[in-house]
Amino acid sequence: MRPNTVRSIWKSGGCVVNGWLSIPSGFAAEVMAHQGWDSLTVDMQHGIVDYQQMVSMFQGISTTSVTPMVRVPWNDPAHVMKALDAGAYGVICPMINTREEAEKFVGACRYAPRGYRSSGPIRATLYGGPDYQAKADDEILAIAMIETKEAVKNLDKILSTPGLDGVYVGPSDLSISYGMGPGMDHTDEKRLDLIMKILKACKKHGVHAGLHTGSTAYAKRMREEGYQLVTLLNDSRIMAAAAKAMVDDMKGLKPVAAKAKAKGGSVY
Amino acid sequence: MRPNTVRSIWKSGGCVVNGWLSIPSGFAAEVMAHQGWDSLTVDMQHGIVDYQQMVSMFQGISTTSVTPMVRVPWNDPAHVMKALDAGAYGVICPMINTREEAEKFVGACRYAPRGYRSSGPIRATLYGGPDYQAKADDEILAIAMIETKEAVKNLDKILSTPGLDGVYVGPSDLSISYGMGPGMDHTDEKRLDLIMKILKACKKHGVHAGLHTGSTAYAKRMREEGYQLVTLLNDSRIMAAAAKAMVDDMKGLKPVAAKAKAKGGSVY
Amino acid sequence: MRPNTVRSIWKSGGCVVNGWLSIPSGFAAEVMAHQGWDSLTVDMQHGIVDYQQMVSMFQGISTTSVTPMVRVPWNDPAHVMKALDAGAYGVICPMINTREEAEKFVGACRYAPRGYRSSGPIRATLYGGPDYQAKADDEILAIAMIETKEAVKNLDKILSTPGLDGVYVGPSDLSISYGMGPGMDHTDEKRLDLIMKILKACKKHGVHAGLHTGSTAYAKRMREEGYQLVTLLNDSRIMAAAAKAMVDDMKGLKPVAAKAKAKGGSVY
Amino acid sequence: MRPNTVRSIWKSGGCVVNGWLSIPSGFAAEVMAHQGWDSLTVDMQHGIVDYQQMVSMFQGISTTSVTPMVRVPWNDPAHVMKALDAGAYGVICPMINTREEAEKFVGACRYAPRGYRSSGPIRATLYGGPDYQAKADDEILAIAMIETKEAVKNLDKILSTPGLDGVYVGPSDLSISYGMGPGMDHTDEKRLDLIMKILKACKKHGVHAGLHTGSTAYAKRMREEGYQLVTLLNDSRIMAAAAKAMVDDMKGLKPVAAKAKAKGGSVY
Amino acid sequence: MRPNTVRSIWKSGGCVVNGWLSIPSGFAAEVMAHQGWDSLTVDMQHGIVDYQQMVSMFQGISTTSVTPMVRVPWNDPAHVMKALDAGAYGVICPMINTREEAEKFVGACRYAPRGYRSSGPIRATLYGGPDYQAKADDEILAIAMIETKEAVKNLDKILSTPGLDGVYVGPSDLSISYGMGPGMDHTDEKRLDLIMKILKACKKHGVHAGLHTGSTAYAKRMREEGYQLVTLLNDSRIMAAAAKAMVDDMKGLKPVAAKAKAKGGSVY
Amino acid sequence: MRPNTVRSIWKSGGCVVNGWLSIPSGFAAEVMAHQGWDSLTVDMQHGIVDYQQMVSMFQGISTTSVTPMVRVPWNDPAHVMKALDAGAYGVICPMINTREEAEKFVGACRYAPRGYRSSGPIRATLYGGPDYQAKADDEILAIAMIETKEAVKNLDKILSTPGLDGVYVGPSDLSISYGMGPGMDHTDEKRLDLIMKILKACKKHGVHAGLHTGSTAYAKRMREEGYQLVTLLNDSRIMAAAAKAMVDDMKGLKPVAAKAKAKGGSVY
Repeated sequence: MRPNTVRSIWKSGGCVVNGWLSIPSGFAAEVMAHQGWDSLTVDMQHGIVDYQQMVSMFQGISTTSVTPMVRVPWNDPAHVMKALDAGAYGVICPMINTREEAEKFVGACRYAPRGYRSSGPIRATLYGGPDYQAKADDEILAIAMIETKEAVKNLDKILSTPGLDGVYVGPSDLSISYGMGPGMDHTDEKRLDLIMKILKACKKHGVHAGLHTGSTAYAKRMREEGYQLVTLLNDSRIMAAAAKAMVDDMKGLKPVAAKAKAKGGSVY
Repeated sequence: MRPNTVRSIWKSGGCVVNGWLSIPSGFAAEVMAHQGWDSLTVDMQHGIVDYQQMVSMFQGISTTSVTPMVRVPWNDPAHVMKALDAGAYGVICPMINTREEAEKFVGACRYAPRGYRSSGPIRATLYGGPDYQAKADDEILAIAMIETKEAVKNLDKILSTPGLDGVYVGPSDLSISYGMGPGMDHTDEKRLDLIMKILKACKKHGVHAGLHTGSTAYAKRMREEGYQLVTLLNDSRIMAAAAKAMVDDMKGLKPVAAKAKAKGGSVY
Repeated sequence: MRPNTVRSIWKSGGCVVNGWLSIPSGFAAEVMAHQGWDSLTVDMQHGIVDYQQMVSMFQGISTTSVTPMVRVPWNDPAHVMKALDAGAYGVICPMINTREEAEKFVGACRYAPRGYRSSGPIRATLYGGPDYQAKADDEILAIAMIETKEAVKNLDKILSTPGLDGVYVGPSDLSISYGMGPGMDHTDEKRLDLIMKILKACKKHGVHAGLHTGSTAYAKRMREEGYQLVTLLNDSRIMAAAAKAMVDDMKGLKPVAAKAKAKGGSVY
Repeated sequence: MRPNTVRSIWKSGGCVVNGWLSIPSGFAAEVMAHQGWDSLTVDMQHGIVDYQQMVSMFQGISTTSVTPMVRVPWNDPAHVMKALDAGAYGVICPMINTREEAEKFVGACRYAPRGYRSSGPIRATLYGGPDYQAKADDEILAIAMIETKEAVKNLDKILSTPGLDGVYVGPSDLSISYGMGPGMDHTDEKRLDLIMKILKACKKHGVHAGLHTGSTAYAKRMREEGYQLVTLLNDSRIMAAAAKAMVDDMKGLKPVAAKAKAKGGSVY
Repeated sequence: MRPNTVRSIWKSGGCVVNGWLSIPSGFAAEVMAHQGWDSLTVDMQHGIVDYQQMVSMFQGISTTSVTPMVRVPWNDPAHVMKALDAGAYGVICPMINTREEAEKFVGACRYAPRGYRSSGPIRATLYGGPDYQAKADDEILAIAMIETKEAVKNLDKILSTPGLDGVYVGPSDLSISYGMGPGMDHTDEKRLDLIMKILKACKKHGVHAGLHTGSTAYAKRMREEGYQLVTLLNDSRIMAAAAKAMVDDMKGLKPVAAKAKAKGGSVY
Repeated sequence: MRPNTVRSIWKSGGCVVNGWLSIPSGFAAEVMAHQGWDSLTVDMQHGIVDYQQMVSMFQGISTTSVTPMVRVPWNDPAHVMKALDAGAYGVICPMINTREEAEKFVGACRYAPRGYRSSGPIRATLYGGPDYQAKADDEILAIAMIETKEAVKNLDKILSTPGLDGVYVGPSDLSISYGMGPGMDHTDEKRLDLIMKILKACKKHGVHAGLHTGSTAYAKRMREEGYQLVTLLNDSRIMAAAAKAMVDDMKGLKPVAAKAKAKGGSVY
């Protein structure tokens, strides 16, 4: 089976630089796959992406050695299993708030007896190789999003779920859940504490920690802190910010915080 | 945030004339958006529409000032949240039969602490404006379908769900649930009573009442009775009926009840 | 080979009632195919339709006994041959102004030695049957649009093109070409004379005459005059007009000339 | 209502030869529909197929008399009902392990009072006819997959679910569930016993038994044993195996077990 | 008719800041439409865009006030007219090398008697308004690409073509035609002279001059020189360059000429 | 630049085993790309494939080392150049009957000064590498179809066209052109002579010779004769024939000439 680069980087103690795809286009995904990312995650939750587009995007990514992952729209075995059969090498699942939810999610990623994934890796076998089914349970990553007060409360129970490979922190939902507004790259004490608390719990349980960020500065800082996977914005926001900066330059507008003001992106 | 016309019409005491879209085409949606409707609802339940087409249809509608709404296929946060992120200004959810189901649905439409909608309004921010996330909970409409005997039994509990903006009556399912056949524009006492009973309960709870109808005559009658949103058939049935009438005219067929017999439509 | 209904109707002296499809949706096409039309023409010229959608629309039509035809975007063998291979039983070609253009068009519809159509009827064989290739040249209709002053000038030369089965009058382009505005259903002497002149020339040459119309009244009149195929508006205009009439009724707007004012349609 | 051929064959004591579609293309489905299958099942679970493609595939199938069925991705009323509204004449539902799950599934296939299917058969009425809604509950097939140890344990409870028309055995998942690897066409005693045990239970409960197979030899054997519906691989595996055999022949490679080694297929 | 902003800017003596779209996605186009561009050109020649995607992209753009334009793949009336019917407010046509080619192109953009555009502005009327057909010939822009030695030789003849609104310089093809490699933003004397020579000829003939550029610095310089429309790279290259810069920053790679090296873009 | 395997095989004196794709699906293309073909040609002429699907199919193929080629629908620079920009490593052009047509075709495949291909290899650079534009003219294959009596008459003139890399014989059109019916794998003297005559002329001019065949037996025979590229049927015919053979086996039908009778294929 084609090895999972994310797992390899983690084994070697490195931090994965992950890109995030919201534009429903196999071509745009292929362009992104040539920019140096370690992995690319197709965002089926907040991206403008459904199943058929996800497959095209996986094909675009699969023309390179970048590892394809997915964020599913919800903790639903239909989404998880279809993404895996199509070749996802990692699944990020939003809103895992309890141990029960974590088990339901992880189980959907693994064949019996470890889980209840149904057998039929139609494109995964093409991508991964003929021994896919024998090795998938050891290669595929199951990553739960921790992004609510409830999840933080249940952190130990969630992180001790057998087979859970990592967590992914959604800073915007986490912030909203704690009564603060949406946004990323938090530096205030309260939210920074939360982000560090989750990281520490991950280390304790031997679970890998990932984080969505809005800048290389923050991503580097969190990599220093110990996060093992960092995402930078997403394709549409990167494009929007860069385009806006160029237009502003042409029009003599002050590029003050061009990125923050760029429309067309969303806040995670 | 771009204001929600449906809400504005309701505030001014008016009744919304709503169109219904089942043809999976952004172009057809844009054509419909130029015919004078106050709002257009993309029907993901019984229409031939999935997510990617819904987005195209929203884009077609968004070239005009008509308010885009959606009927989701089922009470599932994945459907509700993806539709909202794509720019739906109202969500109609089928088969809400209990208070618990109503709460699950309304919660999916609202950010914490009012609900559990996940943060990432990727196209909604483009459509609604940069203050979308701050104001969405007050603008977006959560509308529950009342269309079963069980729902009628639980009417008060459902209608008192905090954050529920309206109900939408599905006359065909309601009729079937009471042991009568499918169909719309019921005038028999039993079903008319049901439709009035729901309306009265709505008025009591300050929840807006909407209804699917099959003719302007019935829609006007129900508007008189107090319904605040009326839908007229859908795009494919309107097209089918008008086309059939023309063909029948050419072929010398009697246009007797052409509309009722027109094939290609479905019965709600 | 499945017989061509248009040809059968013509043989029996009848007039074909033809529908016109501009909405890019196999479902919308299937709905239209159930309304009683003798044939349906997918409009690749002015409709929002490209090749892949045309195939889906042919599939929708092919679930019924309605005959599928196509209007190609231009007199280009690539368009003509791909439409035929996909199962078109008739091709309407715009802007045929000279004998040379007519020969180029008809040749693209016929295999050697009658023409230069390339061999590969991939879906046509599924639709037409295993003897498709042996009989296609006798069943498939090649119909040239007469819609310019130049075409009228060259009428006899065009109509005597071997293998030309019919002409189709585009009243809007014809009118523009003669210095009058766009529009259909002309009743002024000058344009009516043109439409009759083309009809007479067709009769003289044994070529079938078709016309695009905007109402059943005009279509019936022209059928009386001898036109053998009449089209009524198109799917999007029929839908738009009927929807607008309903909305106007709801809003108390006068339905004066609702059809003429309906937006969303185009003028042929 | 257009009769359901699968039901007719069963009534006459025959065994249905079912094809399986994983390629997301209405054209490929139409090609398959011309090869003699009694029914074709669109695989939305492990096939590369989502809703919009399923509709196109149904249209391709509906140009012939082959009966269209679907395997939904999961036991979710949204999937089941949308497939039925689009014209599926049978629904195969994966991973039915308990009586409760069976009831939830069957209920989604039937209108009240037999179930809770919502009214709106938008394309089903086009395909099935104007009396679709009156007769659908008697024609449409609800088929539960038995593919886990738990399901075998609950066999009698599942098979006695009112309205359940058939079961479909997934040999690969069944094998995995019993601790053996994936694969089909099992001939070892343990798994053969399981397959026979399920068959016998079906006979006892008057429920029809179907099976996924990997060869005509095994399919014929199981037909002899009493299975009433047999599927042969799927479109992509059939294509892959035949293509590989031709390439191997050209390259002088030994065609040893070409089929088994063909890549591009999946194992059910 | 909705006015053409490009024409308005030109009338007021301004220079249009034009964006360029190669990603086949209505969503990506809508995101770009929010970044401040005066106009956006859908590139059907070298972009990964065909007709159906162009329509979706126009719909995305039409949700804003940005002016939609198109570059067609070749000087073919089928491409030009379909793009105009779909709502393009300007057409850029590649490889116009002779007066005859210029006349063929301009004629396809205008109704008779100015040209030979066929009547049927199906979406253009929705976008432009009901008086579209009366005013289109005065609002729609016909812009010829000057990008070969032959075109430079025929400059006066091309620029004096009646109805030609502008030229668009393709610096990469122009350079190749003169025996130098591909690329943009030329500053060597030979190619700069060419670019100035074309500009001067435009001024002499009262034709507007546009240029494809690779940076705001060069675009500003050319705006100073008198170019009235400047394009900056395209969507995919902007995204690729910005993404690569972020990844390089994370990986400690020197961002030397990150933009120039970014893969995924093409050279015009 | 990624080397062109077809060219490498030719350099080493080998014969290319080429697959042919008519099913519009990136997934089906990816499946085919795993079966051992040296190259795969996307058939945009007689396949059910347009531009957007071709790109997806190229992406599917590009996940492997199989060389992607295309057959364009007609000798039109718009088709040729868009296919090349999307990453085609070889272009097969139908119906090249004269030297002038050959030059027009070859010129569209080469940048100036060798031809007039426009600069913008948007996906080709991703696939081929950053030096694509410098080397493309030496790697990309221009292959003309010889398939008419006229082409045979002009054989020497066509084959001496500078830059022409190969010819591809379409046996069905060739046969029709000589007054015989469609079909492949001709063994009668007259047509065999033609096929040998073309081969000899190719050898004389140093142009590579390719042929479409319907069986491995005939392909091997022609490989022996000296043909350097042989194609075997296409994806849909291979699938159809194999499926029909299985169904016939199940139904006890004699598999006599199953392949020849299989529906769903076309005849080249």
